[in-house]
Amino acid sequence: MVTLGVDLGGTNIKVALVDEKGNILQQASCPTNLPRPAEAVCDDIAALCHQLADGRSDVAGVGIGCPGTVDDATGMVLYSNNLDWSNFAMGPYLQERVGLPVRLANDANAAALGEALAGCARGTDSAVILTLGTGVGGGVVLGGKLLTGYTGAAAEPGHMVINDAPNAPLCTCGRRGCLEAYASATALIRMTKQAMAAHPESGLWQLATLDTVTGRTAFDGRDAGDPVAAGVVEEYTHWLAVGIANLINIFFPQVVGLSGGVANQGEALLKPLRAMVEPMVFGSAFASKHTTLTTCTLGYRAGVIGAALLARN
Amino acid sequence: MVTLGVDLGGTNIKVALVDEKGNILQQASCPTNLPRPAEAVCDDIAALCHQLADGRSDVAGVGIGCPGTVDDATGMVLYSNNLDWSNFAMGPYLQERVGLPVRLANDANAAALGEALAGCARGTDSAVILTLGTGVGGGVVLGGKLLTGYTGAAAEPGHMVINDAPNAPLCTCGRRGCLEAYASATALIRMTKQAMAAHPESGLWQLATLDTVTGRTAFDGRDAGDPVAAGVVEEYTHWLAVGIANLINIFFPQVVGLSGGVANQGEALLKPLRAMVEPMVFGSAFASKHTTLTTCTLGYRAGVIGAALLARN
Repeated sequence: MVTLGVDLGGTNIKVALVDEKGNILQQASCPTNLPRPAEAVCDDIAALCHQLADGRSDVAGVGIGCPGTVDDATGMVLYSNNLDWSNFAMGPYLQERVGLPVRLANDANAAALGEALAGCARGTDSAVILTLGTGVGGGVVLGGKLLTGYTGAAAEPGHMVINDAPNAPLCTCGRRGCLEAYASATALIRMTKQAMAAHPESGLWQLATLDTVTGRTAFDGRDAGDPVAAGVVEEYTHWLAVGIANLINIFFPQVVGLSGGVANQGEALLKPLRAMVEPMVFGSAFASKHTTLTTCTLGYRAGVIGAALLARN
Repeated sequence: MVTLGVDLGGTNIKVALVDEKGNILQQASCPTNLPRPAEAVCDDIAALCHQLADGRSDVAGVGIGCPGTVDDATGMVLYSNNLDWSNFAMGPYLQERVGLPVRLANDANAAALGEALAGCARGTDSAVILTLGTGVGGGVVLGGKLLTGYTGAAAEPGHMVINDAPNAPLCTCGRRGCLEAYASATALIRMTKQAMAAHPESGLWQLATLDTVTGRTAFDGRDAGDPVAAGVVEEYTHWLAVGIANLINIFFPQVVGLSGGVANQGEALLKPLRAMVEPMVFGSAFASKHTTLTTCTLGYRAGVIGAALLARN
């Protein structure tokens, strides 16, 4: 038995035929071509599904990772800012056109499910996946199932406030001091620029201008021996550690997996991060088992794989 | 079919025979008489179980709510500060003496399960229960099951840092700015005392001295029209709202239930709290379903009832 996974993005629609272990057997894609009506986008998804399923009798279902807030129980996309859709019955619409059961998840949740079942947390009982990109996305998988919550909108760990202070950085959600405002790549870039502005002598200026700073700049500066860059990395790592420790104290998961641009630093990020997180974990001195803090392994394929595995759930 | 629930406290051992709906049919108790060996305490628990099960053939199992960190899978009490036990195989020990399957949960988790299945969240699909007492305890129930995590120690939402600042109040866990340091009754008493010390003119001085302040004092002062007391209640409510909004943004549960001394304020606490929490919830404007914020209903019976219902899981 195989399933189809759909990663519906603002730029491209990717569809893959995936086996029960999360291996991609075949894939196809097309541009999303926004803005256009939800039905037109779904007709393209259906065409890609038919293309990959053509001649096979072992395709059991379709899973879709969709940006925004979705309700899997009803198949509704409640609201998607990226797609500019609201209250669209995507599940029923696609189910009719593809002729297979359709499951729906938020795109970050689909990717988290992929990592939990077939990536960095494969074979474990619980995982919290954090994506450190433009924002901080996330997903929680418990006993092989996505945590979606009563409203279908779980989990949004990026919008956990870790510093409720009037001078805390503003988050995209309108509040101050969210994890996203401290641990996204965007936040790291902001911290790097602030440090550069405050330290004209910093070696960071040899690596970038204020216009060309990326999420790598501070790490590169630290590796080159610049103390200002090292300070930025330490500050960023601290905030990320506070957020991760909070999530461990809530879920005590077997794995916390990090993905997204900043996670590409690998052990250069993980090693100091683990050292900071450990003493923040409640009761860690008495625990017989500890959470493993690691990086994700599926990369951009996590979305289609997770969506396909959702269709098996 | 009925089950036995045990609420093992530092002062008393309470045991109840409970039906499938969470009704207490019969109960018995004895003093815990600490300090004494774990085996002696368990022998008393076993005696109470035998007393309540005597002559019945429909008792299916025993559930125990135990202070500290427990591992239900192995029946081990890993560490209990209150009981001064560590690495005690309580499950197997009791199972042998009572002759019934034994399940183990942390006491706050057992109480949360009781509220979720038979109290304020009965009939719902998910609940986060917070106990606002000496500390901030908690439990999360998803699809009728306790979230215990890989390490068995979940959930400790009281040790979620909401204000990571050098001047944030110190928590009992050794860190600063935890929810417990802002939203426990202890924290409310601290805030009340600080306000009294800073405002000799406050009407709070007519209600209490610094030695007799309780978790009710600030609420009573507010009701009597004292602006300083109103400020304390507002500050306390704000911090509690930040913690609750974080938990909603992570779990999006159907119910958040509050128990413990401060929750006895009922709507006087809940009404302003809901107004503060709502705008903090991510995407609340687009959600079709919202978390219900309420108070717990089982009181001190939540522990035995939840422990008994755990034995049915």
